[in-house]
Amino acid sequence: MAGYREATPDQAQYLDELVEAGLLIPSGVPGVYGRGTTFEDIRTRFDDHVSRAAAFEGAESLRFPPVLPRRQLEASGYLKSFPHLTGVVYAFEGSEIQAQEQARLACDHEDWSEHQHMSDLVLMPAVCYPVYPAIARRGPLPAGGVIIDPGASYAFRREPSGDPARLQMFHMRELVRIAEPDTVQAWRDGWRDRALELLRGLGLDARFDVASDPFFGRSGRMMAASQREQELKFEILAPIAGPEPTAIASFNYHQEHFGALHGITTATGETAHTACLGFGQERIVLALLKTHGLDPAGWPAEVRDALWRA
Amino acid sequence: MAGYREATPDQAQYLDELVEAGLLIPSGVPGVYGRGTTFEDIRTRFDDHVSRAAAFEGAESLRFPPVLPRRQLEASGYLKSFPHLTGVVYAFEGSEIQAQEQARLACDHEDWSEHQHMSDLVLMPAVCYPVYPAIARRGPLPAGGVIIDPGASYAFRREPSGDPARLQMFHMRELVRIAEPDTVQAWRDGWRDRALELLRGLGLDARFDVASDPFFGRSGRMMAASQREQELKFEILAPIAGPEPTAIASFNYHQEHFGALHGITTATGETAHTACLGFGQERIVLALLKTHGLDPAGWPAEVRDALWRA
Ligand SMILES: Nc1ncnc2c1ncn2[C@@H]1O[C@H](COP(=O)(O)O)[C@@H](O)[C@H]1O
Ligand SMILES: Nc1ncnc2c1ncn2[C@@H]1O[C@H](COP(=O)(O)O)[C@@H](O)[C@H]1O
Ligand SMILES: [Zn+2]
Ligand SMILES: [Zn+2]
Repeated sequence: MAGYREATPDQAQYLDELVEAGLLIPSGVPGVYGRGTTFEDIRTRFDDHVSRAAAFEGAESLRFPPVLPRRQLEASGYLKSFPHLTGVVYAFEGSEIQAQEQARLACDHEDWSEHQHMSDLVLMPAVCYPVYPAIARRGPLPAGGVIIDPGASYAFRREPSGDPARLQMFHMRELVRIAEPDTVQAWRDGWRDRALELLRGLGLDARFDVASDPFFGRSGRMMAASQREQELKFEILAPIAGPEPTAIASFNYHQEHFGALHGITTATGETAHTACLGFGQERIVLALLKTHGLDPAGWPAEVRDALWRA
Repeated sequence: MAGYREATPDQAQYLDELVEAGLLIPSGVPGVYGRGTTFEDIRTRFDDHVSRAAAFEGAESLRFPPVLPRRQLEASGYLKSFPHLTGVVYAFEGSEIQAQEQARLACDHEDWSEHQHMSDLVLMPAVCYPVYPAIARRGPLPAGGVIIDPGASYAFRREPSGDPARLQMFHMRELVRIAEPDTVQAWRDGWRDRALELLRGLGLDARFDVASDPFFGRSGRMMAASQREQELKFEILAPIAGPEPTAIASFNYHQEHFGALHGITTATGETAHTACLGFGQERIVLALLKTHGLDPAGWPAEVRDALWRA
């Protein structure tokens, strides 16, 4: 498998424990798991916890399915930065004879790719992508811009791994700010601090740091260095399994990238700036289970109260 | 676009009204829409309504991401029946030079398919597919079998259309019964009646009928006739838009297909039979909006109470 990353021994052991406890269900493909009742209960309670913390802002809720028009991805530059993470939807367009041939090959687990063609859809690279064209359709922003809550939706990343915290399809709980540059930056920094407090309030040993995206290849290293130098990305990290703490939330300032791409203008006619934050929900559940134990009944009262009593 | 179906005039008009009201947000690809706050509120309230109706059964909740191992699809026979509906995940496996070439082609909206390879994942064909291997892993069923609630998850169907009720990615709320043949059939018939009552209780002009799946091609016509003759599939239909009522829920008896495929055995060592039901959630929301009006504030009190007061 292209780019498969081995688990470290303690990542492999944690995955075994999670499966043994019925928290995760292996599918046979690394990074693709079913979730048991308890895992999902924690994830949705955490989602509600974030919604309560965000309620004061009065964000507008929009929801999008986990596929994106291919044209939008092509125009976005994502394939330049993250070709290795992209998932593309292919489909069959042939005759009945070809369908039979394809089925015969597939049934024998042979190569049936000659019968598949690239469709007009790709898998969702990040939950905020469909938000920008949706807002652009409305015309110029109202004064002060907008805050959009695209909820906890699936994103796809082609990074197969034995680490239970590195999934190919996972829930990102995002919030998106679209406005003037100052407004957007202040919002991003405010949420970085608020999110750190929220995650520490759940007993996680969380800290934040300047970060960069996993840009592809050697040219990607320069993009990462530039992103880091401009402090365009912060992450909150917490221990899950493995030698390093894992990113459980990200805070991104896109400057005018998406505003210019989709022609979003402020009330005064300038190109809008955007920022987003994303909580990695499965990672946060894994960090909570690792920190407090695999049975939430035994978690500290403050954590239980925060998630289940509210 | 392969197999694009035009909307009828009233389907096109209903879509325009839904977009105008902010209930649906066009993506540029037919059958792929964002959902506004009100649409999503109705959908999740309906989901809770189903959960309350199902509570007496004590189903076990499991959740799965909307991708399935390709090997499972290949073994299932899905490609023989529904090659035209299948979505396959492709990914990049090349060098930095190839990535640059791919990005350049994509940026110009040219053909970059030579750089993509079939991965080990496909899009979820129906929400119950991952349930069977998950239960098979546990060994023989307990006496009386199991009832699994995979929740309202996304399924993908490659059927681009101008009809707002025909989506490429949509939420199916499923329930799955795995047990002895008699148990499974009685469960399926019980839910058909319960679901009809539930949907009529929301003011929908719903009726049920024997149905068949949209099998591909001429050979598919025989499969459909046989399925219909054996009454393996029932549907509940309700008016949305267009000349015919639309299927808003399905009730499927798979006989031993999935039990045999995944080696699921009953407590007494027989091959388990399975049945599932699926509520098409977006279609149900569209039927409610069409029946009662685009603003739920004006819906009949009984319907509002059933969904929002419970
Ligand atoms: N492969 C992955 N598996 C699980 N969670 C992830 C993965 N990639 C990113 N995340 C989470 O999603 C958040 C937002 O992702 P990003 O857009 O990469 O910053 C990150 O902070 C992680 O918590
Ligand atoms: N293309 C589609 N768009 C929206 N809903 C669908 C679509 N196909 C099926 N459904 C819904 O999902 C339910 C289960 O699908 P099926 O497995 O085809 O019986 C159907 O009864 C429909 O309500
Ligand atoms: Zn984002
Ligand atoms: Zn099913």
